[in-house]
Amino acid sequence: MKFSFSDNTEPLKPSAIREIFKSLTDPSVISFAAGNPSPQSFPVEQFRTFTDEILSDNASVALQYGITEGYTPLRNEVLKRNKCIFGIGGEYDTAIITTGGQQGIDLTAKVLCNRGDAVICEDPTFIGALNAFRAHGLRTVGVPIKGGSIDPFELEKTVAETKNAKLLYLIPTFQNPTGKTMPYEVRKECLRIAEKYDLMILEDNPYGELRFSGADVPTIKSMDTEGRVVYCSSFSKILSSGMRVGYVICHGDIATKIAVCKQVNDVHTNLLFQMVCHKFMTEFDLDGHVERIRELYRKKASLMMSCLDTIGEERIEYTKTDGGLFIWASLYGCKDHDGFVKALAENKLVVVPGKTFNCDTNRPSTGFRLNYSTPTDEQIIKGVEIMKNTITDYRG
Amino acid sequence: MKFSFSDNTEPLKPSAIREIFKSLTDPSVISFAAGNPSPQSFPVEQFRTFTDEILSDNASVALQYGITEGYTPLRNEVLKRNKCIFGIGGEYDTAIITTGGQQGIDLTAKVLCNRGDAVICEDPTFIGALNAFRAHGLRTVGVPIKGGSIDPFELEKTVAETKNAKLLYLIPTFQNPTGKTMPYEVRKECLRIAEKYDLMILEDNPYGELRFSGADVPTIKSMDTEGRVVYCSSFSKILSSGMRVGYVICHGDIATKIAVCKQVNDVHTNLLFQMVCHKFMTEFDLDGHVERIRELYRKKASLMMSCLDTIGEERIEYTKTDGGLFIWASLYGCKDHDGFVKALAENKLVVVPGKTFNCDTNRPSTGFRLNYSTPTDEQIIKGVEIMKNTITDYRG
Repeated sequence: MKFSFSDNTEPLKPSAIREIFKSLTDPSVISFAAGNPSPQSFPVEQFRTFTDEILSDNASVALQYGITEGYTPLRNEVLKRNKCIFGIGGEYDTAIITTGGQQGIDLTAKVLCNRGDAVICEDPTFIGALNAFRAHGLRTVGVPIKGGSIDPFELEKTVAETKNAKLLYLIPTFQNPTGKTMPYEVRKECLRIAEKYDLMILEDNPYGELRFSGADVPTIKSMDTEGRVVYCSSFSKILSSGMRVGYVICHGDIATKIAVCKQVNDVHTNLLFQMVCHKFMTEFDLDGHVERIRELYRKKASLMMSCLDTIGEERIEYTKTDGGLFIWASLYGCKDHDGFVKALAENKLVVVPGKTFNCDTNRPSTGFRLNYSTPTDEQIIKGVEIMKNTITDYRG
Repeated sequence: MKFSFSDNTEPLKPSAIREIFKSLTDPSVISFAAGNPSPQSFPVEQFRTFTDEILSDNASVALQYGITEGYTPLRNEVLKRNKCIFGIGGEYDTAIITTGGQQGIDLTAKVLCNRGDAVICEDPTFIGALNAFRAHGLRTVGVPIKGGSIDPFELEKTVAETKNAKLLYLIPTFQNPTGKTMPYEVRKECLRIAEKYDLMILEDNPYGELRFSGADVPTIKSMDTEGRVVYCSSFSKILSSGMRVGYVICHGDIATKIAVCKQVNDVHTNLLFQMVCHKFMTEFDLDGHVERIRELYRKKASLMMSCLDTIGEERIEYTKTDGGLFIWASLYGCKDHDGFVKALAENKLVVVPGKTFNCDTNRPSTGFRLNYSTPTDEQIIKGVEIMKNTITDYRG
């Protein structure tokens, strides 16, 4: 039979990245397309010890239904750690454990926005957030990233001109896909503009702990004095992405509403892994572990950047990243980046075309995204070599 | 600051059951309010063995991002088992692993219904489904359960009279909260009516394997020849509820749409526990384990029913259940069941008031729900004793 889908979900297509992954069955293909943490970053032995301890000492809690808001000791540690590292959390704030950071984005949009409302986004931005917004029937209105950040003047103009703008979605630190960090002054301006036009801000910070050079920039949430900022993050990039444990830190009134929606979405997040995360935060040197991941990614990013440098700055431009997982690249004078990405794929290097991350998917790509956390060093060298050769031959 | 919430979620309140649980900190209070499996039903040692094996042999898969649709070997086993036990699955059907059965309900509604559409439900029915529908801005229209089932004549009348009816939500086996099973003839009629009025059916079957007496009745999904029935179930009641692993079996076209929505909801379900479930299905006597749970619940249900019998059938009426987790009870001539539930709570027995499960929450309670899987035998005896004494004193 022919099925009729809801107006919100009818136009949704499987994301381009998912389709790319399905093509990755050929082992000779090199992928810079992932957004995955390096498997070397998983503290596997500690996971074994902690799961075994919990199933020995506390199985009847871990395997039973839990509280929707999350395992209380973990919620407390999450608040403590984020207060300590990022200066986050007013007296009115609380933490809810979510099924990955993605659920935080999805439920925040569900709770704050009506179908037809607009979410103002950096353009390009994280496809998972864009599609979450689209699945609620929201309009995604982009403010272009230029020189590594959005321009506050353009942001204000866009907000002022956009009907029913409700939410400002930002990844201020090591942005996906550009890898760039929003300067302090721009962050302050984002908050000022949000206050002026009564927008809520969704600050997405999955990569915030992965800085391997440069100085931290204060989170927008740390400047928030009234609960205007909903802050999402997760353990995906520092412990394990497959376990799906993330969190939202926000004003208690919003948290209550998110919890009601989470209750009807998945009741609660896998409880044993919430307890494992709590052990990682209290019985393990998590800071030392994060430091080792930073060192790993610093090396990988440096390697990829020094390889890219051999292509020559007259041919390729890329973001010098200080952390996170991504580098954004574009070719000088290239009129068809999508064609170039296709040519790369024919030469067995897969990257994500920039169009994927555009608020308006009809706008052509201005570049492509490279990931350095997942490929091996050999693959990074070989992959950039393929890129170099493809550029030489490419006329587009 | 004062926050403004979306029209869909603004009216939502934390569920009454959640509030009841928060009051359960006093250890002298006996609870028949849960919907939890018995902790005795968790195969704890096997969980320890399987998690340890996976983290030893396959950690880099288990801790990494996975495919949204779920761990392929588990999806295959789920299809196989449901085909074998419940005769479910046409050639066009596929399985998607969800974060508990709840996510299957939530995403099915999201994919099939627009705000303002109606979901036709048994009345009373599962509060988690009702609130999921409400959170999408859907209207819940009830068909009263009488004599253990809805009346097909009344169902057809309701469907015909309801504008924009899109979905028929049913828990045909060991219904929550009534514990009753819908007869075969009524199931056939539900499917016929759905076909006639072009409704989709969401068949929710979390308790289907927990039959301890009587004969199985065919699932509606097993009668479906065109993909009209979306079937939700989970491992929550046979392995562990805290791990949050469930599934949807439905037509591939719907599955594709659900997967797109799941991708932006939580990317995928906790991967290690998907792999654990796969091991339970292939390296463990799951049928023998389910048989032991049935025996456990048969004893607990028998005990509760024989205790209830001492109250006297002239005072209390209750459903003789053949499986699942619940008994539905009501007092003869009682005009205020909510008052009675309050009187019980004052005497330190907590049950769930019937109103909680009503499609129209302004309709008064016609009874209350009792759970026998969670309390100990002593608590069952003591709790029903409290009920007996409370009835004697109660004038409402």
